[in-house]
Amino acid sequence: MTLMVVGSVAIDNIQTPTARRDNVLGGSAVHFSFGASLFGSVQMVGVVGDDWPEEHTKLFQKHGIDTSGLEIIPDGKTFRWTGKYLENMNDRETLDVQLNVLGDFQPKLPEAYRRTQYVFIGNGAPATGLKTIEQLQGADLIVADTMDLWIDIARPDLATLLTKIDGLVLNDSEAKQLTGERNVVTAAKKILTMGPKFVVVKKGEHGSMFVSQYEIYVVPAFPTENVVDPTGAGDSFAGGMMGYFASQGNMDAETIKTALAYGTVTASFQIEGFGADRLLEINREDIDRRLEQLHAIVL
Amino acid sequence: MTLMVVGSVAIDNIQTPTARRDNVLGGSAVHFSFGASLFGSVQMVGVVGDDWPEEHTKLFQKHGIDTSGLEIIPDGKTFRWTGKYLENMNDRETLDVQLNVLGDFQPKLPEAYRRTQYVFIGNGAPATGLKTIEQLQGADLIVADTMDLWIDIARPDLATLLTKIDGLVLNDSEAKQLTGERNVVTAAKKILTMGPKFVVVKKGEHGSMFVSQYEIYVVPAFPTENVVDPTGAGDSFAGGMMGYFASQGNMDAETIKTALAYGTVTASFQIEGFGADRLLEINREDIDRRLEQLHAIVL
Repeated sequence: MTLMVVGSVAIDNIQTPTARRDNVLGGSAVHFSFGASLFGSVQMVGVVGDDWPEEHTKLFQKHGIDTSGLEIIPDGKTFRWTGKYLENMNDRETLDVQLNVLGDFQPKLPEAYRRTQYVFIGNGAPATGLKTIEQLQGADLIVADTMDLWIDIARPDLATLLTKIDGLVLNDSEAKQLTGERNVVTAAKKILTMGPKFVVVKKGEHGSMFVSQYEIYVVPAFPTENVVDPTGAGDSFAGGMMGYFASQGNMDAETIKTALAYGTVTASFQIEGFGADRLLEINREDIDRRLEQLHAIVL
Repeated sequence: MTLMVVGSVAIDNIQTPTARRDNVLGGSAVHFSFGASLFGSVQMVGVVGDDWPEEHTKLFQKHGIDTSGLEIIPDGKTFRWTGKYLENMNDRETLDVQLNVLGDFQPKLPEAYRRTQYVFIGNGAPATGLKTIEQLQGADLIVADTMDLWIDIARPDLATLLTKIDGLVLNDSEAKQLTGERNVVTAAKKILTMGPKFVVVKKGEHGSMFVSQYEIYVVPAFPTENVVDPTGAGDSFAGGMMGYFASQGNMDAETIKTALAYGTVTASFQIEGFGADRLLEINREDIDRRLEQLHAIVL
């Protein structure tokens, strides 16, 4: 099956308690794509400015990422994010955001993308997701990510988006924020009444949970001490999960559990390096080996 | 194998956001024993006052709990705890504590208990655990629980206790508090350097983790919306885990993972009622059925 992602493409400056790295390739579409590319090809929809280094595009292509949907705005500047992780490597502060060309992002799907079967709407303004969905012709599975910012400032658009997607991926704190519920299972079930057929709740170091009307599946995180940079963990999780779904073309119970596990393993590599550094070093065999390890340590 | 527990025996008053129950049978030794009794017989060591209702002792005996180590202090009063759970059903405030006879608790092991092979030292002053261990003759496995209070006020005794036990069971926040580490795996490994051969980290709704020098195992919690009263969840988890260990008499990888899973399932029933109410309604078949469900939903 074909797989597409729409989302942000960014240049990040990242501080952790022990290191700082500037001009790191980032953004939700980027981290998703590198994760998904371990499972098959990916079509990327995003926008950058004319400051965009051509070598990044070449890097995408080298990893089987179709960049014909990556728009370059002349005289525009690429989205930039500067953030700092706190001591616990979990909470972070955004120090600076320059939306630049992302502020006016109008996703334009190349003709070849419109009949794509598996679609992921990476974290971004819900309006971007809605404009993407308008251009799709008969997708099999549309999954979106969201975050606290959009729950705060774009709830009406988000509510509309929820009625047009099959699955929603979000953090446990965001699931609680969106629903006002304190129990994560109750929160996920309430989100099902807002439109999606399933919800994937990401709990960071505590793993993830898939909730649909009749099913619940849980996958613990791969336990690790080696957290270098958590940026993009959620996006690469979604990339691994959707990449596996697209490679299988079904959503039976075993496929769902395995997709969550592949997402978990992909994210466990992602956080071992700055930006996408670590994912770029590994291949599907590394992923499969760690999946086996995960199977061995989990009940 | 024989299994013994030493710990508190209490009368609790419990408030949750939606209900209040007074004079609930509680305490670490009690919740542990009811959990472990689903897997075999248990020897209980504890202390109560002469206000202790005889029917509680009969209830223990009915559930295969040996009460010859339950000391009744004439003219003493039983330990009482009054607590209130906050909206999230996770954090709680202690509203009142009356230590009473627990304040001077000198555990006295009946002769028949001293050669017990599997021993659990429930949450309580580390000095109580040390006095228990002095009386043991060649136990195969000694596991202790602890909590933030003892890390704060009895660290020297706790440090000594850690050198005399095989395993430590504690919450993730307590593991971080005890070690000053922020990563739970790193914290658990640091605890291994303090004495125990293994650490079981309880993460509440996020499951649990077993860490030894060469092994890590993770088990997610059983996902539930039906949380009536979390009191004793950790004790009943330990009861299920130790009860299964004692029933198997070995600690190979599958036994460890299954023991953690049994602990998880036991605790998942415990929180469905006030105090031990729910555990008293179920039997080993209910436990095994839910273990199968847990297997089905976990990776």
